[in-house]
Parts: sequence; C-alpha cells; structure tokens
Amino acid sequence: MSPAGQSSCFEGRAARLAEKLETAGPEGSELDAYMVTNLVNVEYLTGFTGTNGACLVGPGFNIFLTDFRYAERAAGIEGWDAEVISGQWMDGLAGRLGGRVGFEDDHVTVRTARQLEEKAKGAELVAAGGQVEDLRRVKDAGEIKRISAAAEMTDVLYGRLIEYGFLGRTEAELDAWLTGWMRKQGAEPSFPPIVASGPNGASPHAEPGPREIVRGDLVTVDMGVKLDGYCSDCTRTFAIGAESDLGSLARELYEVTLRAQLAGLGAIRPGAQGSDVDESSRQVIREAGYGDNFGHGLGHGVGIEVHEAPRLGPGSNDKLMAGEVVTVEPGIYVPGLTGLRIEDLVMVGPEGIGRNLSSVSKELTFV
Amino acid sequence: MSPAGQSSCFEGRAARLAEKLETAGPEGSELDAYMVTNLVNVEYLTGFTGTNGACLVGPGFNIFLTDFRYAERAAGIEGWDAEVISGQWMDGLAGRLGGRVGFEDDHVTVRTARQLEEKAKGAELVAAGGQVEDLRRVKDAGEIKRISAAAEMTDVLYGRLIEYGFLGRTEAELDAWLTGWMRKQGAEPSFPPIVASGPNGASPHAEPGPREIVRGDLVTVDMGVKLDGYCSDCTRTFAIGAESDLGSLARELYEVTLRAQLAGLGAIRPGAQGSDVDESSRQVIREAGYGDNFGHGLGHGVGIEVHEAPRLGPGSNDKLMAGEVVTVEPGIYVPGLTGLRIEDLVMVGPEGIGRNLSSVSKELTFV
Repeated sequence: MSPAGQSSCFEGRAARLAEKLETAGPEGSELDAYMVTNLVNVEYLTGFTGTNGACLVGPGFNIFLTDFRYAERAAGIEGWDAEVISGQWMDGLAGRLGGRVGFEDDHVTVRTARQLEEKAKGAELVAAGGQVEDLRRVKDAGEIKRISAAAEMTDVLYGRLIEYGFLGRTEAELDAWLTGWMRKQGAEPSFPPIVASGPNGASPHAEPGPREIVRGDLVTVDMGVKLDGYCSDCTRTFAIGAESDLGSLARELYEVTLRAQLAGLGAIRPGAQGSDVDESSRQVIREAGYGDNFGHGLGHGVGIEVHEAPRLGPGSNDKLMAGEVVTVEPGIYVPGLTGLRIEDLVMVGPEGIGRNLSSVSKELTFV
Repeated sequence: MSPAGQSSCFEGRAARLAEKLETAGPEGSELDAYMVTNLVNVEYLTGFTGTNGACLVGPGFNIFLTDFRYAERAAGIEGWDAEVISGQWMDGLAGRLGGRVGFEDDHVTVRTARQLEEKAKGAELVAAGGQVEDLRRVKDAGEIKRISAAAEMTDVLYGRLIEYGFLGRTEAELDAWLTGWMRKQGAEPSFPPIVASGPNGASPHAEPGPREIVRGDLVTVDMGVKLDGYCSDCTRTFAIGAESDLGSLARELYEVTLRAQLAGLGAIRPGAQGSDVDESSRQVIREAGYGDNFGHGLGHGVGIEVHEAPRLGPGSNDKLMAGEVVTVEPGIYVPGLTGLRIEDLVMVGPEGIGRNLSSVSKELTFV
C-alpha cells in the first residue's frame, strides 16, 4: 500500500471506532471517549510500532499520545493529533481523560487502572475492552494483500522444506532451518514453528526436540511468517518414507482429518456461527470414533496477531463476516502413538470461502 | 548449572517467597497465599518456560499449575507439586484459592481479577505485586554465571564489530549483522540493538535506519544478548575516521560522559540509594553544562529481563544490595547535532563494585 493509502485507512479506523462509542459501554451504554493502550490495537489504528503509545478517540477527536522519543514519528501520522507527554506518562494520560472513558479492561492491569482512577479526577473509567479487536476482525484490501503475501511465503517454504528433506533430521534441526529461512527472506516466524514427529505428533503444541525422524513417521509442521506487520498460519502433515512404511492407523487418521478439514471449509460463510463451523468438522471426527482425540478448537482469526478474533470452536458465538481471515485446523491426537493436523488459512467471501490462501497440497505426501 | 543445582535453587526460591508472605499484604499485613501469574516470575520460581503456568505459594505448599500440554514437563519440577488444570483455566485457578491471596496487581488485568473474584468465592484477592521481582534482584551464583556468559559474548561481539567496520555501512545493516551474529551463537538479542550515528545519536532510543555512517560521526551501539535465559546489556560509542575528523563538541561530550560514567561506577556499593548513585553521575554532566541533555535514568537491574529492579535514577528509593547486577549508563544528547552513551554491566559486591562484567575499552576508539 502507498503511504497515502495507509494514512486514509488509519483515519477510517479511528472514525469507525468513534462510531462504536454510542453503544460500547456496559449494557450498550454510551461512552464519551475510548482509551486504547494495547500496543497491537494502537498499531492497527495509527500504524505506530514503537514501545510506548496510546490513543484517545471520541466524537471529533483522535489523539495519539507518546513520549519524546517518538515525537517526530508521531507528527507524521495523518488523521491523528499527536501529543507528546513530557514528565510522568501516567499523569499525562490521566490529565487528558474526562467524562465516561472506556478502557481496555482485558489489557490494563489492576494497578494501572487504580492509578489512573486516582489521577483522573474528572473522569469515570468504564471497562469496555475488545472494541478495536472487533474492528480488526474484518480486513481491508491492504490487509488482505499483506496476509496473502505472508501466506504465499509460507507456501514457498513448504516447497523448500520438502526439497530439504525430513528423514534422519531432528525436529529441532528442521525448526532452526525453517526459522532461518524465514529470516533470510526478511520475515519473522509468526510463532515458533512446530515440528512434531511420530509419537510427538500426539501433542498439539509439541516443542521441536532432539527426536530423529524415521521411516513410517507422520510429521506435523505448523508454521507461519510475520511479514510487513501481518501473519500467516498453515499446517501440513507429511508421511516419511515409502507408502509401505506407513501404518494403517496413521493412514486412517490422515484420511479422517482431511475429510473433517474439508467439511470445516465447507461450512465457512458469512453469518455462520463459530460453534457451528467447528461442529461441521468435529462431527466427521466423532463419527469416525475419534471424538475424544480432537481437544482444541477448529480455528481462529489471523491478522496483526496470529491468534485474534473470531474464534471457531465449541461455545463460540462469533458470527463470521465477509472479509475475515480465519484458520480451519482440525487434528486427531492419539497419546503415545501418533497424531496430525491439517490447517488452511482462508478468507471469508461474500457467499462462502472467498479465497483459500494456503495452496500447498493436502494429499498425503510421502517425503 | 547442573540439573540438580537447578532444582534446589527453585525450591529455595519458593521458600523465600513463602517467608515474605508474613508482611507482603498492604501496610505489611499477612497473606495466606500468593499467586504468581507473570510468566517471567513463574520461570524464576520453577524454571518453567512454557506459555501457560501459575504458582501458588504458602506456608507448607508450593503448587505449580499448568494445562495438559505441559503435564510431563510440570511433573519434572522438583520441589513443586504439579497440578494439571483440565477444563477452563480460570475455573481451575479460582478453585484452588482460599483465604487472603496476594496477586500480582501490576500484571493481572482488570478483567481477569474481576473474573477470579467472582469465581473464587472463599478467597479474598489482595493486590500485592512485586514480591518475586524483589527476590529476583539479588542473583545467586548460577545466575551470575549465566549473566557473565552473556556479557562475555557481548564483549566478543564488540571486537568482531570493530573488525567488521562502520564506515560506509548503514545503521540498519549493522543492526542486522549484530542480530545475525548473536543468533549464529545460539543467543537472541536481549532487545533490538541500537545503532545510532551522527545526529541520530541525539535520540537515546533511536531505531537503526538507512543513514550511512560517515567520517566524523559518533556511533552509539547499545546491545546485549539473552543466553541460557539471562540477559546482558552494554553500550559503547565509537568515533568514525581519524582523530582529525572528529569535531570538538563530540570530543568534549565523550570526555564528560566517560567521567560521569566512572563517577556512577564509583558510587555503586551495598546500601547506596538509586537516586544517589544517579546523582553522582548526573552531577558531572550538570557541572559540564549538559544537565538538560541527560533525559533518562542512570541504570537498571538486569537478569531474566533486560530491564528489572532495582532502578538507578532520580527519585529511586531502591537501596543497592550485594549480588545485584545493574547497568551504569549516562548519556548526553544534543538534538540535531550528536549524542552518545557509555554503559557497563556491573555486579554489586560486598563493598563496592564486585565485578565489572563489561570489559570492552571505554577509551574513545576510532574505527
């Protein structure tokens, strides 16, 4: 995106946040202003990526606050009035609060809230977290472009990984190689890559270890990059050796997981509830007799953070919207034996899946 | 340290935390238990480095809580009773609370505290943060060994950097080179390295940019590594080119900063107050006429985190203790022109500086 495009998108985000204030308080009550201190949300609203900043938004004002270190950068943010707090940060912040001010209660600590309440005499602090997270759910064209670029890099990396090979290497070795490759491309891992082989595949969040990969293993690789501020996330499971090396359980689990993953993808559409999309996939696994072996939710939103709203899982009331980017990642885990997961990153379109951003083959691949 | 040494140090840390409970409540009141949720503090107490864990400590009990992903690892922590929470984390945590329970109010969010209060019916939650941070101030032998190893690696890197050269390179290029070198050694930067050249040196927290380093520049390099869980932190400022390339202002600022740094080092001893140590250094800069150009505190503790207690700066009541590891880093910053900083990492000994862990020369070095 051009810098010009950036600026206007930031102004639009502030305007959309200000609009939400009419009903952002408890039980839909109105707020006079909203204070954003979670730096991920500050970045979304302003593009600012320093270590200290806050936003104050209300009808007719968008104020970005930072300290002297970032004075120059702050002045360059179009659509926002930059103010530099000199002296104590907390005093400067409190001094600018008045009326009913919503704050991010899911981010602000008990101590900070108490200090702000003591210092901001004329203001009423109202717990109202999650407003910016709500805005972040639906991605604009610039965000989709960046997430797509991150997903494409991940696809390329899967190709390189297959060339590099698995057999005889340790999980930790592959992990280091994947991370190194990402960094050579100017990206960072969006989370530490998971390389889980053989029985280690039975742990959904296994940390790569010294286990050497052998014939007959399933190896689950779950990875993504953060590129230009946006994340990708993709999981593939590979079979090591020849077809004859693979046991029948592993083969069956792969087949069931893939069917479940396709069923989950098929349930993606605007208006679908997170719990229902999850159930579409979970049902396949349950009916195959592995219902107790899928112990996590089906998916989550991806953007500036690799885990963000919405949530696809049991009990999720989130309703999908066109323009959201979510993962669909069922898995089956059999303790002590084996396990696997298959994950795509997809954009919700106006009718169903707008685009599947993960293009690596999901056919069982022997490497 | 041997695994055996590790275990006993963790048991000792839990015992010291339990001892503090007698007076850890507001106005020195007694607590029945203390809940640790800040993962850095959990790591200090148990060695656990996963993404979800908490400690509950009281007279006669040390409980480490985590979820199913870390069940195996948790069982291996000696001196702690590991319990795996199945189901909702918050329910499991709340269900184990009773009596007056201190919590880390400087870490727990407003929302989490409210949820815990609602769920933990029989318990009174008492804001009492900072207990483990207090314990972390004085380092044990194993910690000193690790910090020393991190500091030695940083010293070696300064040597390599001088060989690699500055002239004609950009700040960003040097930054990437430094970070790459650290990672090749199996370390991570303890914070993103600062490489601030010429006028950029006037910003204490400059981010390395596209500026090409030229003759006559001062270049401030502030960096450290995290190695085996512990950080280092060291700043040196170099002059680029020949002696004749350097202006008289830069030369004077360097001389004043170095004198201030030595004065600060001279004030380090057990019992010295953070504000007094700061003043020893600040006075030198003020008397040279640059009092307004030293806009940050003199130093901070270093350990698992690169910034931790104690604080050396105006208004700090922290009293130094033998076994603490702190930075001494005065700087002078002249906006639009130039600036510099000189920083050592030192251990407080029984009488004065026990050991200066930074061995890179502080003589003005032309590179």
